[in-house]
Amino acid sequence: MRFSRYFSPTLKDDPSDAQIASHKLMLRAGMVRQSAAGIYSWLPLGFRVLQNVERIVREEQDRAGCQELLMPTIQSADLWRESGRYDAYGEEMLRIRDRHQRDLLFGPTNEELITEIVRGSVKSYRELPKLLYHIQWKFRDEIRPRFGVMRGREFLMKDSYSFDLDFAGARRAYNKMFIAYLRTFARMGLKAIPMRADSGAIGGDMSHEFIILAETGESKVYCHRDLLGFDALKETPDYDGDLQPAVDRWTGLYAATDDKHDPAAAAKLGDALVQARGIEVGHIFYFGTKYSKPMNATVTGPKGEPILLEMGSYGIGVSRLVGAIIEAYHDAAGIKWPESVAPFKVGIVNLKPGDAACDRVCEDLYAKLAASGVETLYDDRDERPGVKFADMDLIGLPWQLVVGPRGVKSGTVELKKRATGEKHELAVEAVLAQIVA
Amino acid sequence: MRFSRYFSPTLKDDPSDAQIASHKLMLRAGMVRQSAAGIYSWLPLGFRVLQNVERIVREEQDRAGCQELLMPTIQSADLWRESGRYDAYGEEMLRIRDRHQRDLLFGPTNEELITEIVRGSVKSYRELPKLLYHIQWKFRDEIRPRFGVMRGREFLMKDSYSFDLDFAGARRAYNKMFIAYLRTFARMGLKAIPMRADSGAIGGDMSHEFIILAETGESKVYCHRDLLGFDALKETPDYDGDLQPAVDRWTGLYAATDDKHDPAAAAKLGDALVQARGIEVGHIFYFGTKYSKPMNATVTGPKGEPILLEMGSYGIGVSRLVGAIIEAYHDAAGIKWPESVAPFKVGIVNLKPGDAACDRVCEDLYAKLAASGVETLYDDRDERPGVKFADMDLIGLPWQLVVGPRGVKSGTVELKKRATGEKHELAVEAVLAQIVA
Repeated sequence: MRFSRYFSPTLKDDPSDAQIASHKLMLRAGMVRQSAAGIYSWLPLGFRVLQNVERIVREEQDRAGCQELLMPTIQSADLWRESGRYDAYGEEMLRIRDRHQRDLLFGPTNEELITEIVRGSVKSYRELPKLLYHIQWKFRDEIRPRFGVMRGREFLMKDSYSFDLDFAGARRAYNKMFIAYLRTFARMGLKAIPMRADSGAIGGDMSHEFIILAETGESKVYCHRDLLGFDALKETPDYDGDLQPAVDRWTGLYAATDDKHDPAAAAKLGDALVQARGIEVGHIFYFGTKYSKPMNATVTGPKGEPILLEMGSYGIGVSRLVGAIIEAYHDAAGIKWPESVAPFKVGIVNLKPGDAACDRVCEDLYAKLAASGVETLYDDRDERPGVKFADMDLIGLPWQLVVGPRGVKSGTVELKKRATGEKHELAVEAVLAQIVA
Repeated sequence: MRFSRYFSPTLKDDPSDAQIASHKLMLRAGMVRQSAAGIYSWLPLGFRVLQNVERIVREEQDRAGCQELLMPTIQSADLWRESGRYDAYGEEMLRIRDRHQRDLLFGPTNEELITEIVRGSVKSYRELPKLLYHIQWKFRDEIRPRFGVMRGREFLMKDSYSFDLDFAGARRAYNKMFIAYLRTFARMGLKAIPMRADSGAIGGDMSHEFIILAETGESKVYCHRDLLGFDALKETPDYDGDLQPAVDRWTGLYAATDDKHDPAAAAKLGDALVQARGIEVGHIFYFGTKYSKPMNATVTGPKGEPILLEMGSYGIGVSRLVGAIIEAYHDAAGIKWPESVAPFKVGIVNLKPGDAACDRVCEDLYAKLAASGVETLYDDRDERPGVKFADMDLIGLPWQLVVGPRGVKSGTVELKKRATGEKHELAVEAVLAQIVA
């Protein structure tokens, strides 16, 4: 993409209404614009990151055997009356009345709707287990939306739902999602720690939050220091096998959010106790028959008997993750994207557009990178070098190729790694091998 | 995907509430389930088709130089008050009040919001032209939703918006979308004819609807017979070049929707006049300064003067297209998917699961097709052959591989092409070459 044509309006100064780094940087880098309180439009640069995050979430769900479908944003209130949550949910639910005066709502989550779909189509125990997910925009009418996409009102969530015959089956589904979540976050460069958590509005008996440690986190968290060293990508899980040992390894060490914190238990950790602030990026629940019972969602068992479905639900904040990644990867100059989610892998900075030699080298690199499938943003704008350097650092692409008249004369360009600031000169011919490798 | 594990509930009988083929078949094939009046959940099979349609739409937008962003579903009413459409839009707009008693709405279209985004970020004539699009769920509170996803209330739309300095620029953008639309529909196997159309609620001076001829179409249409023979994929367009001659070739022959129909002009066509019913799958508009003027969206010109933005908007009904494709491709037994949008390319029918030889051949074919990147649905269910044949025809995958004990003994399977019903026996080893080619 040529920067001169790209719709990517950067801002020089911090917007006054943004308090945390990710919010400031997303506005300054031209990733999002607020359209109403807590409601954002994703501009092209931000949308590319959102799509990358979504892709990783999807790949890991599919790998775990979860099947994708798509439920609508608008739901019928009657469904929520069946579960009893229509009245219980409170003001965070956006309630709507249509032209025929029927009560609707903008889904804040989908336990009721997916239960209705499954109870209408799955009749026999032989059709279970089922593990289903969708990635859809949700709405929660937060009283004070803030921190940009981290606590917006309209947000993109991946939510999965499991349907099983018994606790053992539900536990297997829970474990699949537990492991899939660790892999998902790790692939984005995030160290997420599963912590015992309160089950809140979803309800249920077993629940873990996946927490990123960050100073700007909204909640206090506590965990054993060793958890910070665990590597979720070390082994490839066998989702058809027994995942319990892997889950036990993670849950065997103390880790709890404030709600579930047990000071006495934590005190025993001594120096190994980490107290920090955390950002929730995922939350998984086992809640048994909490929804299937009031909604009468059963299958016929081997002897013709009705069996209430055992359920769990599993959420990842897809749009929130974009903010969480920035909280983990930035410096004073801007964002430092991990490659897996970067909007482009490479930025080419042409220091002297209009100079025939610079233009030629840039165009040539741009074409060759494109031909190699490397996504590249080419800053061909007629701007001062200082502006270009600042924008490129702000946008935070993993690699910068700086092309100037002096280097071009000697056949070299400068390659800068955004994460470390490391720079080195290299021959124009060597660029591709360096970046594509 | 193994059918035994897949969440794809087929129905034997036509649902009583469905009137047209696509609605019936989408319900029967387990592609969608209605969640509320005119609001559908897309089950895994249907979601795969929706994603394929969306991918083709996206690829052709990108190819035409349109940049993707994503606006939210919920918009502020104040923005629509600026353009005057908040009061004018009528009851099809889903109006919402949030917990702070602020007026919101579920976007039925996005002219106002994109104009606000552009006026806030694009300041100079040098930043134009801009051609932007998003693919997002919309809501129109139809008084009588019907025909399944063809006239639902919540629907997926691709909408593009162009911003130019003058009419000539706007015309270039219009032409880009005109050509991109023809390619988009043709890639899905649809013959879409651009017709002069009324500009309705969007307003404006120049407008074309893209119409598929179908008996179940909602509106009467008229066109020159030769248009049916035009091939939109014959040439690869140069979107940086002059597209006017190509557009003129399409618009040079008579074609109009009922609103714009001119009986006197049409009569001159004689035998060449086609009268038919049509389904609208796309609609493009040039409307100049209709929105930029009331919303004061200007850029600074070369001499410092303000220039009102010249705009157009361009919509494709993504979810509706799924229904339109089925209207064009089905028979009494079910759907006949064009390969470009099929949920899977191949279905394997195991006539005797549990038979060691049949299972071995099926598993082997399934693994080899997967390794070759061919998306395959393997019917490994313990069902009678008649049920499996019926389901496979209903679901409508382009190719069926039928594996039975008799054939396996002689090393052959049956390959059936769903579109034509053509069948032939072929050696197991020859299958891959036949299908992958």
